[in-house]
Amino acid sequence: MIKITLPDGSVREYASGITPHDVALSISEGLARNVISANFNGTTVETVTPLTTDGSLVLYTWNDAEGKKAFWHSTSHVMAQALQELYPGIKLTIGPAIDNGFYYDVDFGENKISDNDFKAIEDRILAISKEKHEFKMRNATKAEALELYKDNEYKTELIQNLEDGTITFCDHSTFTDLCRGGHIPNTGIIKAVKILSVAGAYWRGDEKNKQLTRVYGISFPKQKDLTEYLALLEEAKKRDHRKLGKELDLFTFSQKVGQGLPLWLPKGAALRERLEQFLKKAQKKAGYEQVVTPHIGHKELYVTSGHYAKYGADSFQPIHTPVEGEEYLLKPMNCPHHCEIYNAKPWSYKDLPKRYAEFGTVYRYEQSGELHGLTRVRCFTQDDAHIFCTPDQLDEEFKKVIDLVLYVFGSLGFENFTAQVSVRDLNNPDKYIGSVENWGKAENAIISAAKDKGLNYVVESGEAAFYGPKLDFMVKDALGRSWQLGTIQVDYNLPERFDLSYKGSDDKLHRPVMIHRAPFGSMERFVAILLENTAGHFPLWLMPEQVIILSLSEKYEKYAKKVLNLLENNEIRAKLDDRNETIGKKIREAELQKFPFMLIIGEDEEQNGTVSVRKQGESGKTNTSMKIEDFISLIEEEVNKTLKQF
Amino acid sequence: MIKITLPDGSVREYASGITPHDVALSISEGLARNVISANFNGTTVETVTPLTTDGSLVLYTWNDAEGKKAFWHSTSHVMAQALQELYPGIKLTIGPAIDNGFYYDVDFGENKISDNDFKAIEDRILAISKEKHEFKMRNATKAEALELYKDNEYKTELIQNLEDGTITFCDHSTFTDLCRGGHIPNTGIIKAVKILSVAGAYWRGDEKNKQLTRVYGISFPKQKDLTEYLALLEEAKKRDHRKLGKELDLFTFSQKVGQGLPLWLPKGAALRERLEQFLKKAQKKAGYEQVVTPHIGHKELYVTSGHYAKYGADSFQPIHTPVEGEEYLLKPMNCPHHCEIYNAKPWSYKDLPKRYAEFGTVYRYEQSGELHGLTRVRCFTQDDAHIFCTPDQLDEEFKKVIDLVLYVFGSLGFENFTAQVSVRDLNNPDKYIGSVENWGKAENAIISAAKDKGLNYVVESGEAAFYGPKLDFMVKDALGRSWQLGTIQVDYNLPERFDLSYKGSDDKLHRPVMIHRAPFGSMERFVAILLENTAGHFPLWLMPEQVIILSLSEKYEKYAKKVLNLLENNEIRAKLDDRNETIGKKIREAELQKFPFMLIIGEDEEQNGTVSVRKQGESGKTNTSMKIEDFISLIEEEVNKTLKQF
Repeated sequence: MIKITLPDGSVREYASGITPHDVALSISEGLARNVISANFNGTTVETVTPLTTDGSLVLYTWNDAEGKKAFWHSTSHVMAQALQELYPGIKLTIGPAIDNGFYYDVDFGENKISDNDFKAIEDRILAISKEKHEFKMRNATKAEALELYKDNEYKTELIQNLEDGTITFCDHSTFTDLCRGGHIPNTGIIKAVKILSVAGAYWRGDEKNKQLTRVYGISFPKQKDLTEYLALLEEAKKRDHRKLGKELDLFTFSQKVGQGLPLWLPKGAALRERLEQFLKKAQKKAGYEQVVTPHIGHKELYVTSGHYAKYGADSFQPIHTPVEGEEYLLKPMNCPHHCEIYNAKPWSYKDLPKRYAEFGTVYRYEQSGELHGLTRVRCFTQDDAHIFCTPDQLDEEFKKVIDLVLYVFGSLGFENFTAQVSVRDLNNPDKYIGSVENWGKAENAIISAAKDKGLNYVVESGEAAFYGPKLDFMVKDALGRSWQLGTIQVDYNLPERFDLSYKGSDDKLHRPVMIHRAPFGSMERFVAILLENTAGHFPLWLMPEQVIILSLSEKYEKYAKKVLNLLENNEIRAKLDDRNETIGKKIREAELQKFPFMLIIGEDEEQNGTVSVRKQGESGKTNTSMKIEDFISLIEEEVNKTLKQF
Repeated sequence: MIKITLPDGSVREYASGITPHDVALSISEGLARNVISANFNGTTVETVTPLTTDGSLVLYTWNDAEGKKAFWHSTSHVMAQALQELYPGIKLTIGPAIDNGFYYDVDFGENKISDNDFKAIEDRILAISKEKHEFKMRNATKAEALELYKDNEYKTELIQNLEDGTITFCDHSTFTDLCRGGHIPNTGIIKAVKILSVAGAYWRGDEKNKQLTRVYGISFPKQKDLTEYLALLEEAKKRDHRKLGKELDLFTFSQKVGQGLPLWLPKGAALRERLEQFLKKAQKKAGYEQVVTPHIGHKELYVTSGHYAKYGADSFQPIHTPVEGEEYLLKPMNCPHHCEIYNAKPWSYKDLPKRYAEFGTVYRYEQSGELHGLTRVRCFTQDDAHIFCTPDQLDEEFKKVIDLVLYVFGSLGFENFTAQVSVRDLNNPDKYIGSVENWGKAENAIISAAKDKGLNYVVESGEAAFYGPKLDFMVKDALGRSWQLGTIQVDYNLPERFDLSYKGSDDKLHRPVMIHRAPFGSMERFVAILLENTAGHFPLWLMPEQVIILSLSEKYEKYAKKVLNLLENNEIRAKLDDRNETIGKKIREAELQKFPFMLIIGEDEEQNGTVSVRKQGESGKTNTSMKIEDFISLIEEEVNKTLKQF
């Protein structure tokens, strides 16, 4: 008999050799039907793998990330079979599951493959799947493996790097592949499949090697899931921040300036400025003080902080000065500079907390292939702040930071978010700097703050940084995609390294604790997420341009200008389109530019002192005629709906 | 007979051999009395030098910079004599005039010199001066010169580097010095002298050489001038922005971060932010658009702009990336980035002018010895903007920029300023890029704009940059010192180098003209000047903290907080000092912190709903009691006195 521990902590006894599937069956038939993968003692196993020792078992269904991974990995086997049948003589290399689906890298030899071939591949995959083939793992010797792949130099290379005795194959239908395992029970549950794209990919990612064809696909247990996914994909494309950023004239890149270095165009810069002023205002109320620091620092500064030892070689390299031969680094973070500001003066416990905030632009090297729009850049501006407080103040400060973060998210329409508290691994106390007491205090402070503020949070053991525990916020966007946004971190390390101190009520010197926090994360990433979440329809208070006035003809120019003036005097951001174009064209362009409100101005409006209001996206409705002052009140009301006082 | 042309263009005939002094005498006795130096055909001459050819003559009095230079240079001869008499055996090296006074670098051998010796030196100088010795130039052969200085290795080194036949000495009293000339007629006009300080200085500025003692002094033709100068010096010391910056907690430097890299403390950052918002608001009205660009650019960007060829070797050296091996530079200016923003889209003449503004932080290497507070730094933020316009728009644009600059200066209390228009040297047309027509247009545009706007300006030929003419503003501060502030420059070069274009009404592509402009110059330098000009008493609208509330005791805390709230709700920046300290101490500290208004709160005030108002610097006066709302109106009035609408 063996003892199986389940995730809820319950322990059950079974005869040795029982499979995960049968364990599921012993719990409920429904579970057994849905279990498609499993993990035993930290290793992925098949649902039919016999378990012969005591251990912890996790069962996965389609709803788990691990379940999807097995599903997609298994489909990549079926796709490989289909490709081999459709294109005899091709050479298969590797085919893993990825975040959304799977791929297989294939040497197609003389064959070419294009979009037109996708349908045939999908049909073949579905036909094979329908036959309900089981996936069966088996061991093979190195010699057998090399023999099987004697015509495939890629698999041969892979096998040569494996130890004899560790090599396994997976068989299904007539197809066999070199594989470490992790499959669904049989092909029958693959009900829908889509080949998404093909792309070039170098063997082993090395551009000195031969270029292969990477075939991307995704599969689902229901046709409906695929349909939904494709609709989502379509919508995500429309919301791609790189596309919207260009259409809305928000930002651009120049190869001459450099890759991953965004240039913010006037409308984008206005958007940033508005976000910054919004946060500055709330931060002022919350007792933060703005500071301004340079974008470089002496190399020694980062030796002191410990960043140089850790990241120096993989970063932008040092800047030398001609005469003194000093070495400076582009700053990858603002904390060392803020520590030096703290150190400029002696402090008493009565002065704390000090809260230094800066929209600090930092530089981090990313390989050019990793760069992506505004989400992976080499230059970004953090809405950074560092709070220096006594250990006793941590609890209160943490709660205040959460309040600020929730205010920011609420004002920007992110309502669907979760939080993760990352704490120590209690089995590895040596990994962490700072006293056990302080860690306990800090972790309790975070957890009690998260609870107090009603956050939907999970606690992850062992996920804390070596220098302190933290709280991260994940938001789900309108398409259900998750983004990591704000973060709040406790730090015992830098106060030590920069020898920060304050005089306590006992007249002795003590170390303050530091909190790092950034509700947006970075302006670049946040604007990207905001674009993808809102498709460019930002909350009204944030829109760089809120209203466009469209005159029916030049005759009404004077009245149109009067309306513009009135709006501007009421701090409404408005623009006048008095070009000599048809009203239809003007409306279409205004729709594309996402103006929340269009005011159409013609003879009636001029005579009655009114405006004809058309809301973004309401093309079917008739326009509403109203007095200008009523329209101004309408805008103010709409703004106040999302932008509350902090 | 020779023809002498005077600065007013008049030509007079004299017998060959006439001296500048006699030319002056031929004009008026008063002039002859005051002339202390002269320039003939571009070369400094003595007032007693015989003139033997036709030429242009400029006569200098004490009121000219050149006159002062001769005065101070001559005094340095007298000081050298005095030192030699007081410390026999010392070795003299060089002793030039400087901006304010003169110095002499001396090898004192075994002798030491300190503040205590200054009086004796001054007395000796005045005693020699009283004897009315004439300064007489004479030629000497190299052999004679070397013989005279055979015990002085410094002068020997200087003489060895001179051509035989060009060596001159100056004699006065019993003293002789190696000298190129430029003296006042005699020592008798030196009526007041002050030895200011001594400092170490390496021979020839090279730290490998022996360290000499540099003796600084200044002299005047009247005792009253010296007294005034010393008072000014005392006042300037009090206004030293480095001192005030520290006292007012505006900025600091950290050796760990790096030299010349200011860290802006909360109050300084708030001051900057206010200045920036003030200018942004005016610029918005003037049709500027803000942009945001990174602080680095690909090396190629600066090769394109031409800056790399010119400054590359003497600048912060390139930053390499690890994988791609790219080279980036810290940006020394924002223009190339703005050109790339302009280039992101095609433009029509109807879209122009485009006015891109950015508070752009730039990095320029200065040797550590050159760094000085906020006026010479390695990192500074320009209130930069670039206007891209058609040549026809230049006139109008230039006037608009002047309007903006005048508005800025007026709002900040700089009323005493002059302007300099720098134009081409018409004799050297090849020095300049851009067509002759465009240059003519641009120069006329600047001059007519300066005239139209009623500026007090001079036109300087040959002072234009190679890429275009410019207009610089000089302000005089409260101590009469001149500072260069805003600049407006026309540029034909970068549009060429970045291949900028717009489609004209003829449907063909044309080059735009660029205007660079920065009313403040840089935030760092401007804040420094503002500090020294106002001694920290900024215009009320700009003060980081306008009002401090001082409660007589804790009893009035509630009322004091109510007053604070009322002020804050009226956007008045106020602070409450409710510490348990005497009112006297609170007032003294508030005076030092330059709070423009102090509100004293006690029993009377609480009962009557009033505040007791004390203005900064009016310690003799009794406080004024007034209703809170009246005080709020007072503040608003005071703000509106300097801060007008643009």
